[in-house]
Amino acid sequence: MQMTIGNFLFMRLRQVGIGHVFGVPGDFNLQLLEQVEEVEGIEFIGTCNELNAAYAADGYARTKGIGALLTTYGVGDLSAVCGIAGSRAEHVPVIFISGVPPLYAIESRLRLHHSLAEGNFDNVMNCLKEFTVVNTRLTPGNAVDEIDRAIHRCWKEKKPAYIQVPSNITYLMIDVPGTKLELKLPASDPERLESAVKHIAGLLDKAGRPALLVDMEVDRSGIAKQVSSLVEKRQIPYAALRTGKAILSETHPLFTGVYIGEASTPPVKDLTEGSDCLIVTEPCFIEGSPMVFPGGLPVKAHVYIRGYSVTVENEVYEGVTAAELISHLIGVVKQSQAAPTQPITAADISAPEPGAALTQVYLWSRIGRFFYPGDIVVADNGTSNIALTDVKLPDNTGYISQLVWGAIGYSLPALLGSMTAAPYRRHILFIGDGSFQMTVQELSTILNRGLKPVIFLLNNRGYTIERYILGMHESYNDIADWRYSALPKVLAPDIETFSAMVKTEEDLEKVLVEIEKKDCACFIELCLDPEDAPEALKTFGPCTADLDYGTRGPQRTS
Amino acid sequence: MQMTIGNFLFMRLRQVGIGHVFGVPGDFNLQLLEQVEEVEGIEFIGTCNELNAAYAADGYARTKGIGALLTTYGVGDLSAVCGIAGSRAEHVPVIFISGVPPLYAIESRLRLHHSLAEGNFDNVMNCLKEFTVVNTRLTPGNAVDEIDRAIHRCWKEKKPAYIQVPSNITYLMIDVPGTKLELKLPASDPERLESAVKHIAGLLDKAGRPALLVDMEVDRSGIAKQVSSLVEKRQIPYAALRTGKAILSETHPLFTGVYIGEASTPPVKDLTEGSDCLIVTEPCFIEGSPMVFPGGLPVKAHVYIRGYSVTVENEVYEGVTAAELISHLIGVVKQSQAAPTQPITAADISAPEPGAALTQVYLWSRIGRFFYPGDIVVADNGTSNIALTDVKLPDNTGYISQLVWGAIGYSLPALLGSMTAAPYRRHILFIGDGSFQMTVQELSTILNRGLKPVIFLLNNRGYTIERYILGMHESYNDIADWRYSALPKVLAPDIETFSAMVKTEEDLEKVLVEIEKKDCACFIELCLDPEDAPEALKTFGPCTADLDYGTRGPQRTS
Repeated sequence: MQMTIGNFLFMRLRQVGIGHVFGVPGDFNLQLLEQVEEVEGIEFIGTCNELNAAYAADGYARTKGIGALLTTYGVGDLSAVCGIAGSRAEHVPVIFISGVPPLYAIESRLRLHHSLAEGNFDNVMNCLKEFTVVNTRLTPGNAVDEIDRAIHRCWKEKKPAYIQVPSNITYLMIDVPGTKLELKLPASDPERLESAVKHIAGLLDKAGRPALLVDMEVDRSGIAKQVSSLVEKRQIPYAALRTGKAILSETHPLFTGVYIGEASTPPVKDLTEGSDCLIVTEPCFIEGSPMVFPGGLPVKAHVYIRGYSVTVENEVYEGVTAAELISHLIGVVKQSQAAPTQPITAADISAPEPGAALTQVYLWSRIGRFFYPGDIVVADNGTSNIALTDVKLPDNTGYISQLVWGAIGYSLPALLGSMTAAPYRRHILFIGDGSFQMTVQELSTILNRGLKPVIFLLNNRGYTIERYILGMHESYNDIADWRYSALPKVLAPDIETFSAMVKTEEDLEKVLVEIEKKDCACFIELCLDPEDAPEALKTFGPCTADLDYGTRGPQRTS
Repeated sequence: MQMTIGNFLFMRLRQVGIGHVFGVPGDFNLQLLEQVEEVEGIEFIGTCNELNAAYAADGYARTKGIGALLTTYGVGDLSAVCGIAGSRAEHVPVIFISGVPPLYAIESRLRLHHSLAEGNFDNVMNCLKEFTVVNTRLTPGNAVDEIDRAIHRCWKEKKPAYIQVPSNITYLMIDVPGTKLELKLPASDPERLESAVKHIAGLLDKAGRPALLVDMEVDRSGIAKQVSSLVEKRQIPYAALRTGKAILSETHPLFTGVYIGEASTPPVKDLTEGSDCLIVTEPCFIEGSPMVFPGGLPVKAHVYIRGYSVTVENEVYEGVTAAELISHLIGVVKQSQAAPTQPITAADISAPEPGAALTQVYLWSRIGRFFYPGDIVVADNGTSNIALTDVKLPDNTGYISQLVWGAIGYSLPALLGSMTAAPYRRHILFIGDGSFQMTVQELSTILNRGLKPVIFLLNNRGYTIERYILGMHESYNDIADWRYSALPKVLAPDIETFSAMVKTEEDLEKVLVEIEKKDCACFIELCLDPEDAPEALKTFGPCTADLDYGTRGPQRTS
């Protein structure tokens, strides 16, 4: 079968479930944009800049399983690299396609625009190599092999892949396979799998206090349901890391809470530290907690499950997939009796006090009741994702936050991506003013595409998270105060939106009721005091300062 | 003398003329922000994101001679890398300082936020290595050497330098030299200098038709005045490359025009192609012209002047600085008689036609009369810098445009940088809507700092430059139509601004008169047809398509 290189590339993306490619046009990728349109079921979505496109592709991949990004050489690639590094850090599979100069120009080292004009076309590739699992430049001779390899490894390893497509070859016809690209996990080594399962089952049999600590691997590998079945059958109480929040149910009786090191609640601390069979999943990232352990988990994990290997006690079993391991374990572990469940008492929520200014305490205690099962909650770095750690989400609620890489501004374009992947799910974004200003232009794309998220903008006039680390009253932590609620009408004049400003507890109550009635995008500015912060941030700040500056740093003297 | 590492770093920046550092706070650089404040005469300017900070530092450096950027590790560095690569491509000296994790964390490979959490702290450095002339991580032991080396090489080689400053060492005291850091060009090798001067003088003596083709080296090396003296004394007619526009006077009788390859005016073509002693300066970048020659100049250059070497006929003289070469040449060349100058006839400008919609032709023929000597004109990539090629600027008018790297969106933050460097000069920006949306948030910083530029936003509802390359009517070249003129009041509610929308020739006339009376920032939206373009773009587009896709590409069939 013959097909153009460009059509083959987009057909392959379509075959693995990608229906949308985010990016920005440029002269080296225009011919690829023509070719996206030729493939049925896949659409190009132009964003305002490439960093935002990378974040959008990441958000799309988190909700859909895999995503794609398209840029033009040099200026586009390097604008997107922070987003791609984020996908790498957060184990998100994104196919990064770059339209690059024509092959003959690369080979003759021409002095082109969008390059350093020194004839070097390796520097952009070298940069991307640091953050991608596959990095390749297509030729008519290697295109089929390289496209399939890039997509397959990206998906299997949950890390971004980078494909350079020279601008003068995409419309050439090549021989392509007649069969669909099937994404398939490698099978486990049977002996290793059986041994590992036996080893773990033995530990679980003997265990008086088994426990599970969930991190993002459970989400990325798509094994959340299986893991739920396992904990249900063997009645294993579990906690989540912050980076593993809301992957398993937060309302299940076996759920104990979020593990945040020393500052965890007593039941969570007791669960992890008192367990005689603690199972943890990758990457087990616990820095960024009030008490930080960037060296690793402070307690011994008896079973450490990674994507393609597992460590049980001190024995490493390579070549064992997490999916097969869990499903085999479900088969062999003994059914345990569920403990009688205690009725969950809803947290006491005080009624709004007339005239009381909105505070972080009120906001976060109230907001938990606003969520429905099926919602996707998106939280930016800082106040939002620190406060949401302690807000229990309903079952089947998605939670998107970039806790490892921690780039502020990530969440607004990620919202665009995730909503594009699942427009039928209600999306609710929490974002601070500092984060919002980073990537504000993507509000335009969200609104103009007719998406209807609920956006809560926390306006506390600066980087409150930084204030609690250093410089509480320093002007470098201030940012300009915009007339935020006017923005939707400026960026999307023809789109109906609901925009409001919340200054008091009562305002918040009214607005939350109002939102429920709306069938349009809602943009709510929450006015908060610059020094008001969730309790967790008040301990997080000084701990981070000690980590960063040392315990004799300026945070102790200034 | 003892001083903290941070104070020493900022004192050194101050000593070489840097009064402002652009950047974004983050936990790994907050302690450095404290230290900027401690050094007199240097100020931190927070931008909305790091890419914009990099562009601002670049704009500052173009006007001031050298600039500085401060980010936080990982997320900040990689967000800024496109801007730094641009500075490298355009020979702009920017000191890029990154607050990075504490030394002990790097050494123990801790799994930190803002990293991939894999213990690798070399990947960000490896990425920046591709685009910087010095890249170094400070320790208490190397700080003095490395800071001085980075600043010196950055300034001498006109390329960015990257300094990682671990967060736990900046407040430590170290021994520092008691003397100021003096920026000094290396002296030329005396024999080589003398030989090269003799060689060139000999050529000039014999030459019947000497000519000079100016590129950016003349600006970056600060030798524009000397070069003017040379052409004046020997009466050498000159042309500029697009990347060398307005460095020498565009109103001088010896100025012939801008050289754009085959599409040059006959006098410019005749000057360059008919010269028997053609002198050109680095980098001699002529891709991006209607007829592209990315392989180099299509005519033979007899003298090719670089920063620290010169080629005369086929002999290379290494170790000869451009500055010394020119000043010695002035001493030896014979004084020529100035040709009688013809009175310059101002181009005929038609009066506005009542009711006529604004067109590109009218706009650019009119706008030349709007500039004053001393202005700094900033032009984004696309319609703006292509059209301005042919608009003669008054003497001593600065011109900032990123023609080699060509990142759209560059110009708005660069305007912030250049105006910060020279607030007493009127700045006039021309930017398309696609470019503006890329980096729009920096309008906030410009306005809220009380700067008063004149901004012309060309709203033609999409990427018109791309339309002329491929996809004239394709939706991928469309962008959302914002209510642009409302933006200043949203981003800077407390600042007086003049905002207007121009739809007709008459509107333009009125607005240009209005602007002259204003003492505030002016933000003018120019409404233009999506398919209207300067003549040069109409030839540039198809030529670029042929370069990019080959002459049998989709531009010939679609």
